Amino acid sequence: MGYISPKARIRTQNIVEGAIVLGPSEIGERTYIDANCVIGYPIRRKVIEILEKEAIRWIRDFDSISKGSIIGSNCIIRRGTIVYEGVKIGNRVETGHNVLIREETTIGDDTKIGTATVIDGHVRIGSKVSIQTGVYIPPFTEIEDNVFLGPYVKITNDKYPPSKRLKGVTIHKGAVIGCGAILIAGVEIGEGAVVAAGAVVTKDVPARSVVLGIPARVIGTREEYEAKKKQWEELS
Amino acid sequence: MGYISPKARIRTQNIVEGAIVLGPSEIGERTYIDANCVIGYPIRRKVIEILEKEAIRWIRDFDSISKGSIIGSNCIIRRGTIVYEGVKIGNRVETGHNVLIREETTIGDDTKIGTATVIDGHVRIGSKVSIQTGVYIPPFTEIEDNVFLGPYVKITNDKYPPSKRLKGVTIHKGAVIGCGAILIAGVEIGEGAVVAAGAVVTKDVPARSVVLGIPARVIGTREEYEAKKKQWEELS
Amino acid sequence: MGYISPKARIRTQNIVEGAIVLGPSEIGERTYIDANCVIGYPIRRKVIEILEKEAIRWIRDFDSISKGSIIGSNCIIRRGTIVYEGVKIGNRVETGHNVLIREETTIGDDTKIGTATVIDGHVRIGSKVSIQTGVYIPPFTEIEDNVFLGPYVKITNDKYPPSKRLKGVTIHKGAVIGCGAILIAGVEIGEGAVVAAGAVVTKDVPARSVVLGIPARVIGTREEYEAKKKQWEELS
Repeated sequence: MGYISPKARIRTQNIVEGAIVLGPSEIGERTYIDANCVIGYPIRRKVIEILEKEAIRWIRDFDSISKGSIIGSNCIIRRGTIVYEGVKIGNRVETGHNVLIREETTIGDDTKIGTATVIDGHVRIGSKVSIQTGVYIPPFTEIEDNVFLGPYVKITNDKYPPSKRLKGVTIHKGAVIGCGAILIAGVEIGEGAVVAAGAVVTKDVPARSVVLGIPARVIGTREEYEAKKKQWEELS
Repeated sequence: MGYISPKARIRTQNIVEGAIVLGPSEIGERTYIDANCVIGYPIRRKVIEILEKEAIRWIRDFDSISKGSIIGSNCIIRRGTIVYEGVKIGNRVETGHNVLIREETTIGDDTKIGTATVIDGHVRIGSKVSIQTGVYIPPFTEIEDNVFLGPYVKITNDKYPPSKRLKGVTIHKGAVIGCGAILIAGVEIGEGAVVAAGAVVTKDVPARSVVLGIPARVIGTREEYEAKKKQWEELS
Repeated sequence: MGYISPKARIRTQNIVEGAIVLGPSEIGERTYIDANCVIGYPIRRKVIEILEKEAIRWIRDFDSISKGSIIGSNCIIRRGTIVYEGVKIGNRVETGHNVLIREETTIGDDTKIGTATVIDGHVRIGSKVSIQTGVYIPPFTEIEDNVFLGPYVKITNDKYPPSKRLKGVTIHKGAVIGCGAILIAGVEIGEGAVVAAGAVVTKDVPARSVVLGIPARVIGTREEYEAKKKQWEELS
């Protein structure tokens, strides 16, 4: 039940039988697309529109409505990953299993996206970003280069849900967000800042500071964190 | 490897090749069932019983033991969603990807269920409920109409795990539960109450109150929350 | 698109059409492998190596590089579960849906692994362990017999991420970890200890103690917990 759109520009030989590539997608050299992946899945509005007009019996019936997505070279897209249309992914990007990347998202080179992560559309992610397992990234989030998102970090975009005003979180270069931390809509995480595991961040975090707790408060600096990290590493 | 049971009553033309519909399921008009979905997946006890008696080589071998599920009209069931047998879903319900809905669950009209949400069986969910990404809803939970469950809300049903007494959480009409909040077994969330992101709710929340923290305590009223929301929305 | 390696030793008749078994895997008597499961998925390094040398068009092209995995008898491996190579699973183990078990992991008899749980490789799990839905278990974690991990428990292995020294968490026999708790890299959870829902555990937990909060602190004993549990159970 795999399918590759005749409109797609495929520069790789590594699309596994069973993978689905819709619309005028572009897949770069040596990129691997696993079975049970979909590239170019149509957005909700188009699915609803086409269902009002005609019967859908094959996933390839979506081919005509998908504008496709662009995936660079030397990527690895693992089994179960779904990439919506209008996504642009750089080179040497890897996904784990069952990753969802929704529409109008851009992802830079060398970024890794862990299993079961959901990138919920309209998101900008830089290069060399490390996204661990099970992270949630909603619309309007901006994540700069070299950011580290620990397992199951959850980012929000609605301060008073359900409201009419969504405001994304911005995470500046080199910031580190610990496991299971929650970032509330609209906060800015400063360059090189560190958010401890389990923190709930309700206001902006200054650059190169370390925050902890619920609500998160400053407890130190990145320099102190790096010193402690060095000691910890030397114990091994 | 799709399969539609000859016992099923199918009123839609939109079952994508590769979808599986087991037992005497009923699928309403214009409902879309994506590839890689299963409707009517048999419960654990029946799977174990049949495995003791005969070999299972095809998913359709489950057809004889499934009592099927009922899905209303104009629903969208997205790729990877699994609905167990004995589920009743209303009209205009949508699921994201990789949603799991286990047995003996009822879901009202116009409810939306986000990607990777797990509804773990024996759950009642009303109409116009908004369930965001990655929510966990265990057995014996009751969720009334117009409730909003933010991303990765986790509900429990065992106060002293692992115990012999499971007690569900009840969430009354119009309540709002923030991202990543945990609701402890047996609590009642009052009508229109608001639980802040990251809270751990250990006791009942009065109607139209706002609670926050670990353990959650009352910090205000829904009216105050709505006033702040209005201000926030007007900033845009 | 199912595939069973000619190198595999299959002692069951219950491998559903559409399942994939790679390399010299061994599957025990009466074990059920659902459609859309993969057993013996190759590790990252091997995937990258083979992609540098040749085109991959079929999942069975991975057969030559997989060293396979061993699954005991009377297991149930549900739809969407992926088991990497080098995994050894005992008898009567069950997985929910979309479970990921990565390489060099051992799992004892009678252990249950809930839907969407990720076991991220190099993990040792004992017998009769109950792993609820959505749990995250990173490399170097050790979990002894009879442990209970509530829904969405998150375990970490990097105290100062991203660092060069990963240190696993050890959970001793019979410990209970509540819903959504976070265990920080390197901590030991003592035999029979209880971690409350939503706690963040930053240091070792003494045997048979109960801890709660962020950071978690001792609030009682397992004996007191069991007495409260008994009272709670008698209410029903």
